[in-house]
Amino acid sequence: MTHNEYTAGELAERFGLALQGSADARLRGVGTLARAGEDHLAFLANPKYRAQLSQSRAGAVVMHEENAAAHAGTALIARDPYVAFARMAALFEPRPERPAGVHAMADIHPTASIAPDAHVGAFVSIGARSRIESGATVGAGCVIGEDCVVGEGCELVARVTLVTRVRLGRRVLVHPGVVIGADGFGIAMPREGDGAGHWLKVPQLGGVVIGDDCEIGANTTIDRGAIDDTVLGNDVRLDNQIQIAHNAFVGDHTAMAGCSAVAGSARIGRYCLIGGGAGVLGHLEICDKVVITSMSLVTHSIREPGEYSSGVPLMDNRSWRRNAARFKQLDRLARRIAARPDAHSHSDVAAGDVAHDTLPRPGDAVDKD
Amino acid sequence: MTHNEYTAGELAERFGLALQGSADARLRGVGTLARAGEDHLAFLANPKYRAQLSQSRAGAVVMHEENAAAHAGTALIARDPYVAFARMAALFEPRPERPAGVHAMADIHPTASIAPDAHVGAFVSIGARSRIESGATVGAGCVIGEDCVVGEGCELVARVTLVTRVRLGRRVLVHPGVVIGADGFGIAMPREGDGAGHWLKVPQLGGVVIGDDCEIGANTTIDRGAIDDTVLGNDVRLDNQIQIAHNAFVGDHTAMAGCSAVAGSARIGRYCLIGGGAGVLGHLEICDKVVITSMSLVTHSIREPGEYSSGVPLMDNRSWRRNAARFKQLDRLARRIAARPDAHSHSDVAAGDVAHDTLPRPGDAVDKD
Amino acid sequence: MTHNEYTAGELAERFGLALQGSADARLRGVGTLARAGEDHLAFLANPKYRAQLSQSRAGAVVMHEENAAAHAGTALIARDPYVAFARMAALFEPRPERPAGVHAMADIHPTASIAPDAHVGAFVSIGARSRIESGATVGAGCVIGEDCVVGEGCELVARVTLVTRVRLGRRVLVHPGVVIGADGFGIAMPREGDGAGHWLKVPQLGGVVIGDDCEIGANTTIDRGAIDDTVLGNDVRLDNQIQIAHNAFVGDHTAMAGCSAVAGSARIGRYCLIGGGAGVLGHLEICDKVVITSMSLVTHSIREPGEYSSGVPLMDNRSWRRNAARFKQLDRLARRIAARPDAHSHSDVAAGDVAHDTLPRPGDAVDKD
Repeated sequence: MTHNEYTAGELAERFGLALQGSADARLRGVGTLARAGEDHLAFLANPKYRAQLSQSRAGAVVMHEENAAAHAGTALIARDPYVAFARMAALFEPRPERPAGVHAMADIHPTASIAPDAHVGAFVSIGARSRIESGATVGAGCVIGEDCVVGEGCELVARVTLVTRVRLGRRVLVHPGVVIGADGFGIAMPREGDGAGHWLKVPQLGGVVIGDDCEIGANTTIDRGAIDDTVLGNDVRLDNQIQIAHNAFVGDHTAMAGCSAVAGSARIGRYCLIGGGAGVLGHLEICDKVVITSMSLVTHSIREPGEYSSGVPLMDNRSWRRNAARFKQLDRLARRIAARPDAHSHSDVAAGDVAHDTLPRPGDAVDKD
Repeated sequence: MTHNEYTAGELAERFGLALQGSADARLRGVGTLARAGEDHLAFLANPKYRAQLSQSRAGAVVMHEENAAAHAGTALIARDPYVAFARMAALFEPRPERPAGVHAMADIHPTASIAPDAHVGAFVSIGARSRIESGATVGAGCVIGEDCVVGEGCELVARVTLVTRVRLGRRVLVHPGVVIGADGFGIAMPREGDGAGHWLKVPQLGGVVIGDDCEIGANTTIDRGAIDDTVLGNDVRLDNQIQIAHNAFVGDHTAMAGCSAVAGSARIGRYCLIGGGAGVLGHLEICDKVVITSMSLVTHSIREPGEYSSGVPLMDNRSWRRNAARFKQLDRLARRIAARPDAHSHSDVAAGDVAHDTLPRPGDAVDKD
Repeated sequence: MTHNEYTAGELAERFGLALQGSADARLRGVGTLARAGEDHLAFLANPKYRAQLSQSRAGAVVMHEENAAAHAGTALIARDPYVAFARMAALFEPRPERPAGVHAMADIHPTASIAPDAHVGAFVSIGARSRIESGATVGAGCVIGEDCVVGEGCELVARVTLVTRVRLGRRVLVHPGVVIGADGFGIAMPREGDGAGHWLKVPQLGGVVIGDDCEIGANTTIDRGAIDDTVLGNDVRLDNQIQIAHNAFVGDHTAMAGCSAVAGSARIGRYCLIGGGAGVLGHLEICDKVVITSMSLVTHSIREPGEYSSGVPLMDNRSWRRNAARFKQLDRLARRIAARPDAHSHSDVAAGDVAHDTLPRPGDAVDKD
C-alpha cells in the first residue's frame, strides 16, 4: 500500500478546476467535513452540511462556487462537487498488489487460456475452454467453470463463481460471493406417465452475457438462461444480494439496490433505478427511466417512465393492527359507500379487481415456456 | 464438451412420441421457436407463441397434436410438449468432465470416507467422519465439515459449504455459495445475574436432513436445528438466496422461488409453491397444496389448500402516496361508516384487530423454545 | 468429537441450581421433552409444552420450581429455565478440532501476522499487513485481504471473506459465505462533460469496524464505508442473508433476523430487534429499544422506543384481490366520506400525503453525500 500525495494545485490542474486558497496544501487522503484532517480532501455537495464548512479542518474542500465566496480555506471549485470529489478520491484509494501471472496454488485446465498480464490468485480453479483476457484479475478462491470469458480489465475480487457459459465484457467488477451462471430455476410437473407428481428438471442450456463497465455486488446471483441467454447491458450497476433469474434482461445504465430481485424472462429498460428489496415478476417489461421505490413489487408491465410504488406506511404497531385489520374489510366498506343514496357517482368506486395478469404467482419464478 | 447429435426419428423412438415429417432431421442443440437454427429442437407449449411456428427455422418442433396438423415442418407430437421437450433437452446439455478420484490439492481428514467413483475437486476440504457416497461430485472449493453425508449421485457444483451434521439424500443438486448446517439463530437475553443484558448464544446441537432428488439454489442458506434437525423432504426444489431457519420442515415436492424465507420451526406441507420473496413466520404450519404469492408474508397457520396473498398493488408514486396516506386513517374511516344512521348492519365492519397470534414478530427468528 | 458426560448433580453444582431427584443421572446430550432419551437433558420453558412433561423419557429436565413440585423425575430448578438450559447445552456441543498453526496449503502474505495459537485452515489466503490475533480460528477457504484484524478468539467458520480494512473485535463468530468490507454501493451520474450519462464509481475509502461478541450469519454482507467506517457495536447479533450498506451503524445488543437490510448511513440504536426481511432506508435514525416486525419497511426516523410495523394481512387470494383493488381507490373513498353532509368532522380524514422525507427511494442505497 502506498499513500499517494497530491497538492491542491496538482488536483486543480489535473481535473480542470478553479482553485481558491493554497495551491501547496498537501493532501494524502479524504475525509468528511466533520472529520477531515489537515492532509485530507473533503467536499460539500448537500446544502444541509454547509454549516460544517467553517469548522472543518480539511486541507481542501471541493465545492460549488456559490459556497466558495464565504470560505476562508482552500477550495476546489466544481459545477458538480460530488462528481469532482469522486474522481479525485480515486487517486487516494489504496490499490492492493495483484501481480501478473498465475499463483502456484491455482488449478488451470489445460485448454483454458490466460493473458500473460492477467492476475490469477491462490486457490483459483479455471475450467475447460475458459479465457481470462488482458489485464483481468481473478482473486483468491474464485471458481470459473467451462466456456467462460473474463474480459479485458475485469476484476473478480475473490471467491466469485462463474459456473458455465458466462461471458463478461470489459472492466466488469465482481465482488466476493457472487455466483453467475448457475442453473436457472426451471422445473415442470408431469401430470401423467412415468415421473407424474415429481418435479422434472428443465435443463438450462443458455448462458449469461454481461456488458462492459458493470458492477456486481457481493453475494448477488445471476442465473444462466434456459435456452437463450440471461443478459445485462453495459454500465449496469448491481448492489449486494440481488437475484437475477434466468433469461432476464437488464438494460444499459440501470442500477439496482441491495436485495432486489428480477424473476425469469423479465425485461428491464435503460436508466432504470430499482429500489432495495424490490421485486419484478416474471415475463414483465419495464420501459426506460423507470424508478421503483424500495420493497415494491412490480406486478404488471410498465410502459411510461416515472416513479412507481407499492406497500403501506410504517406505523406504531397498535395503530398498524387497527388499520391492517380494516384492510380485510376494504371491499365491503367500499361497496357500502357506493350503495349510499347520496352517492354522486358509482363509477369511481365501482367494484374492482386486480387484473388477472397482475397477480403475483409463485410460478413466475418457475420456468413454464 | 461433446456436442451430442440425434435425429428426430431417434428422439421419437426414445421418448415414445409420434413423428410427423423428416425422421432424418439432425438435431444438435435446442432453441426457441424464434431463434432456433436448422439443427435445433424447439417446442410449442404456450398458445401465444403459435404464430411463430410457421416462421421457425427449427429442425424439429415438439408440439401437441392439435398444432401439428397445420405444420409443414418436422414435428414430435407429445401430450405435454413442455415436459417432453425438457426430457429431450437434457440430451443436449454439455456435461463437464468430473473424473472419479480426489484432486491432488484437496484436504481430506483421515477419518473421512470417499467412494472410489466419487469426484472431489480442487481446494475441497472434507472434515472428520464425513462420507462421500458413490457417484457423488464435490466441486472445486467446497468445504464439508464434520459428520456429514453426501449421498449417492449428489452434485455439489462448487464452493458449497456443509458445516456439520448435514445429511444429503441421493441425487441432491446443490449450487454454488450454498451454506447448509450453519448455526441456527438462537439467542436468549438473561434478565438477571451474570450476563444480564448481553445476548447468550443458544447452542445448536441438531443437524440438517435433506431427502432425495432435492435442488438447492445458489447462495441459499439452511441452518441446522437447535435440538432436533432441520428437515427437507424428497423432491424439494429451492431457488436462489432462500433462507431456511433452524428446525423448519419443508414437505415433499414443495417448490420455493428466489429470496423466500422460512423462520424457525415453521412447517410447510407437501406440494406447496412459495413465491419469490415471500416469508413464513416461525412456528406456523402450512398444509399441503398451498400457494403463496410473491412477497406475501404468512402470519398465521394455513389449514386449507389454496392460494394466499398479502401486499398492495403497484401504482404510480403520486397515486400511491395519496392512497398510502389514507391507509393510516383506515380504522377511523371504517368507524365513521359504521356509525352512520343509514348503516344497514354494523357486523360486517365491526371493529377489528389482527389477532395477536398473527402478528409478525422479530423474535420469530430468534429461538425461544 | 468427544461425547461429554455429566451427572445431574455435577450440572446442578456447576450452574448453581437446585436439584430434585437423582443426582447420579448421567447425561450425554440434549433433547426436546418429546424426543429426549434417558441420557438426555431437556427443558420446560413454554407452558404449552407442560403436558409433555409427564411422558418425557429425559434423564433430567430444567424447569421452574412451579413445575417441579408435581414432577416425578429428576429436575434442575432454574428461575429462567431456557437460559439455564442454553448454558448447560454448550457443554454437550461437539467441538471440531482446530489445532493451532497454519495449514500447509494456506497462502499468507509475508507482512501478515498470525498469533502462534491461532488456527488457519486449508486454502486460506491472508493479505498484506493483516493480523490474526490469539486464539482466533480462520476456517477452510477464507479469504482475508489487506489491512484486516481478526481479534482474539474470533471464529471465521469457513469461506468467509474480509475484503479490506475490516477490524473484528474479540470473540466475533462469522458464519460461512459472509462478505465483510466489499465496496459500498456508491455511484454518481455526471450530467455534463466527459462521462455524462455513464455511472461514475465513487471510491469506497472507509473500512468496517465490528465490536466484541458479535455474530454474523451465513451469507450476510457488510460493506465498507465511503469515507468513514461502517460500524457494528458490541454484542450485535445478525442472522443469515442480511445486508448492511456502507456507513451504517448498528448499536450494541441489537439483533436482526434473516434477510433484513439496512441502507447506507442509517443509524440503528441499542437493544433493537429488527424482524426478518425488514428494511431500513438510508440516512434514517432509529433510537434504542425499537422493535420492527417482519417485512416492514422503515421509511422515517424513529425517536420513541416501541414496536413498529407496515404491510397488510395475509388473505385467501380471492379476498385479497377484492380488497387490494380497493386500495387503489382509498383516497377517493376517503374524500367521499369527508364530503358527506353528515360528516361530523373533516379533520380526522383530511387529505393526507405521505411526507416527502418518508418516501422510499431507490437512491437511498446509492451514495449521494
